[in-house]
Amino acid sequence: MKYSDRILNTPSSFIRDILKVTDAPDVISFAGGLPNPVSFPIGDLQESIEGAIKKNGSKLFQYSTTEGYLPLREMIAAKYRRKFNLDVNPEDVLITNGSQQALELLGKVILNKGDQVLMEEPGYLGAIQAFSLCEPQFLSVTLEEDGLDLVKLEEMLKTNPVKLIYCVPNFQNPTGLTYSLEKRKAMRDIVSKYDVAFIEDDPYGELRFRGESLPYIGAGHMENSILLGTFSKTVTPGMRLGFLITKNTELMRHLVTAKQGSDLHTNIFTQYVIHEYLMNNPYAEHVKKIIALYEEQATAMLDAMEAYFPKTVSWTKPEGGMFIWVTLPEGLSALDVFQKAMEKKVAFVPGDPFYTHKRGVNTFRLNYTNATPDVIREGIKRLGSIL
Amino acid sequence: MKYSDRILNTPSSFIRDILKVTDAPDVISFAGGLPNPVSFPIGDLQESIEGAIKKNGSKLFQYSTTEGYLPLREMIAAKYRRKFNLDVNPEDVLITNGSQQALELLGKVILNKGDQVLMEEPGYLGAIQAFSLCEPQFLSVTLEEDGLDLVKLEEMLKTNPVKLIYCVPNFQNPTGLTYSLEKRKAMRDIVSKYDVAFIEDDPYGELRFRGESLPYIGAGHMENSILLGTFSKTVTPGMRLGFLITKNTELMRHLVTAKQGSDLHTNIFTQYVIHEYLMNNPYAEHVKKIIALYEEQATAMLDAMEAYFPKTVSWTKPEGGMFIWVTLPEGLSALDVFQKAMEKKVAFVPGDPFYTHKRGVNTFRLNYTNATPDVIREGIKRLGSIL
Repeated sequence: MKYSDRILNTPSSFIRDILKVTDAPDVISFAGGLPNPVSFPIGDLQESIEGAIKKNGSKLFQYSTTEGYLPLREMIAAKYRRKFNLDVNPEDVLITNGSQQALELLGKVILNKGDQVLMEEPGYLGAIQAFSLCEPQFLSVTLEEDGLDLVKLEEMLKTNPVKLIYCVPNFQNPTGLTYSLEKRKAMRDIVSKYDVAFIEDDPYGELRFRGESLPYIGAGHMENSILLGTFSKTVTPGMRLGFLITKNTELMRHLVTAKQGSDLHTNIFTQYVIHEYLMNNPYAEHVKKIIALYEEQATAMLDAMEAYFPKTVSWTKPEGGMFIWVTLPEGLSALDVFQKAMEKKVAFVPGDPFYTHKRGVNTFRLNYTNATPDVIREGIKRLGSIL
Repeated sequence: MKYSDRILNTPSSFIRDILKVTDAPDVISFAGGLPNPVSFPIGDLQESIEGAIKKNGSKLFQYSTTEGYLPLREMIAAKYRRKFNLDVNPEDVLITNGSQQALELLGKVILNKGDQVLMEEPGYLGAIQAFSLCEPQFLSVTLEEDGLDLVKLEEMLKTNPVKLIYCVPNFQNPTGLTYSLEKRKAMRDIVSKYDVAFIEDDPYGELRFRGESLPYIGAGHMENSILLGTFSKTVTPGMRLGFLITKNTELMRHLVTAKQGSDLHTNIFTQYVIHEYLMNNPYAEHVKKIIALYEEQATAMLDAMEAYFPKTVSWTKPEGGMFIWVTLPEGLSALDVFQKAMEKKVAFVPGDPFYTHKRGVNTFRLNYTNATPDVIREGIKRLGSIL
C-alpha cells in the first residue's frame, strides 16, 4: 500500500517517544507539558454536567453545528470585548478540538505544498507538526528575550512570499519567553505591511504570575489576524476545547467547510458543560489558584537552578506559563546530556524537535507544573550534577 | 489573503444549506440525518459519568494518548472478535472524533493530489467532503440493488491505479441499500487482487430490522482493509466517538501521526464515559429499542409511499438504517421537485450532492427516523400530491 507524501514527510512526535522513556515511576520528569491536575475543577464540572443536562436534555447528545455552541461563542466573544477591548462577535469565534485542531484547520485552508510558513526559532512543536501535514517550506526567525528578531523578520517578509506567520507571544512553548510591549507594536507595524495570515496562539496568557498583561499583536489591528485560545490550561485539556477568533469572514467560511469535512463538529456535550461551568463559577478565582501554584513551582525551579547549575549554563525567567528554556555552553548537545540525565533518573525535552532546521542543539525545555517544590529541587540537583 | 487550492476545491455542504431552509417549524422535514433522541440513553450516561469520575478522577480531564483509551479499544476489539469472528486486538483500533475524522485521516495519510478514489454512485456526502480536502480524482461505480456493479468495478480497477475504495455495505447513506452475501464475496475476490486501501464504513450495521447480519467484505480478508464504526447512531452523536479498525500496522502508525498533528487525541472524558456505559448497561437491549422504533417509522413511510406516490416513481426498501432513496421518472430534476415540495411544507435532500459527477439528477433521499408515523404519513401525502 502506498501512502501520501504529506504523511511520509511529517515527523512523528519526538516528545512522544521521549515520554515513553521518561514515564518510569522512579524518574523525575520535567519533560511533559501537562497542566497540574489541580487546575481541573472536577466537582464544579460535575455540577455543570448535571445542570446542563437538566436544562438542555437531549441537545447535549445530538449532532450540532460545525461552528460551535452559540452561547459559548457569545461568552468567549464577550470576554475578549471586556478584557482586551477587542471587537469580537460570536460569529468571529470557531470552536475547535483544542488549539491543535485550529492549527491543523488553518494549515489546511491556507497552505499549498511548498508555501512558506514563518515560525519562531525555537518554535512550538505542535504547530510544526500541524503545518507539516501541508508540506510547506518552513522559515524561521530567532526568538530573542523580548520577542522576534525584527530586523530578520522584515528581511524575511521582504524577500519571501510568506503566507502564514505563527507565534506564541505569551510565555512561549518551549522557551517561556514573552514579547515586550515595544516589540509587539513594532512587529505589528512590520507585519501589517504584508498580505500574510498572522496566527497568535495564546494558550498560557491567563497564567501570568509576574508583570502586566500585554495587548495582542494582530488581534484588533490586522485584517488577517487569527487569535487562538483554549480551556486546556485553565479548565481541562481532556475535553479538547479550544477556539479560534478572526474577523476575516472569508477565512472563517473556509475554516467551517474544512472543519465540517474533518469531524462535522466539536463534542457538543463538552461545549454545553464548559458553558454551564463558566456561567456558574468564579473562573477568575479558579485561575488565580492555578497561577499561585505555578508561581511557587516556577520559583522553586529557578531557585534550584541558581543553586545547582554551573555558571556556564543560562536559562529564561518566565513571567507565567509552564516552561523554562535552558541553554548549555556552545558545542554541547542536549541529546547527549539527556542520556546522562536519564542515568540520574531525571528527564527533560532536548531542544531539537522545536527547530525546523537545526539538529544537535545545545538547548532544552523544562516543565515545572507537574512536580512538588521538593521534587523539583531534587530533580534540578540531579541535573546540575551532570551539567 | 490567499487560500489553499484544496479548500477552494472542496464543496461546502449542500445539505447544510438545505437544512437552513427546511428547519422552519411548520415544515415536515425528511431532509436531516439525525438519530432519534430516543437512541440517547441519557440517564444511563449520567450514571456512567458519575461512575467513571469516581473510579478514575482527574484522568478523565487530563491530556491522554492519541490512539485512545485502552480499555475502550479492548472492548471494541472484543466485540468484533465475538460478533464477527474477526482477529481484532486493541492495537488495531484507533479512536476518532466520529467516523468523519476517520475518513479525513485516511484521506490525509493515503491520498496525494490527483490520486484516484473509487466511490459508490450515489455515495456518502461526508466521505466526498473528507476526501475532497486531498484533491483526489473521484471515480464512481453504480450502486445496484444488491451492491456495486462488479463488472464495472473490475474494469475500473484494471484500467486505473485506484488508491482507495470507499463503500457502506449496510443500509447505505443515501440509498438505504445493502450488499448481498453473493456480491460481498465476489467483490472481496475482485478487490483482493489489487493493491488498494479498502474502507468499509459501517455506521448503521447494528440497526437492522429485517433479514440477517452479513459478513464484512474486507475485514478479516484483506491486508489493507479498514473498517469504520461509531457510537453516533446507537449511543450519542454529540460526543463524537467513532473508531477505525485495521490490521495494517504501517497504516495505523501513519494514522496516529496524522491524528496527533490534527488534534492530539479524542476527548478522553467521553471515552471513559462510553466505556463505563458499555461496562454497566445492556447495550444490545438498548439497540433493540432503537431498531423497533426505526422499523415502525420505516414501515409507516413505505406504506404511505405505496399509498400516495404515483406508479412512475420507485424507491428502495431498506432492511435497516435511516434512509429511503427515491427515483423519479427520467428527465425530472429532484431540485425542481424540492422547490415545489417546500411550497407544500415538506422537505427532503435532492440527490445531487451524493454524486461526484452528475447534476440535476432525478433522485432524492428521505430520512424517517425523526418524525412520528402520523407526521410521516402526512408528509408523504403532501409529497405525493406534487409528484
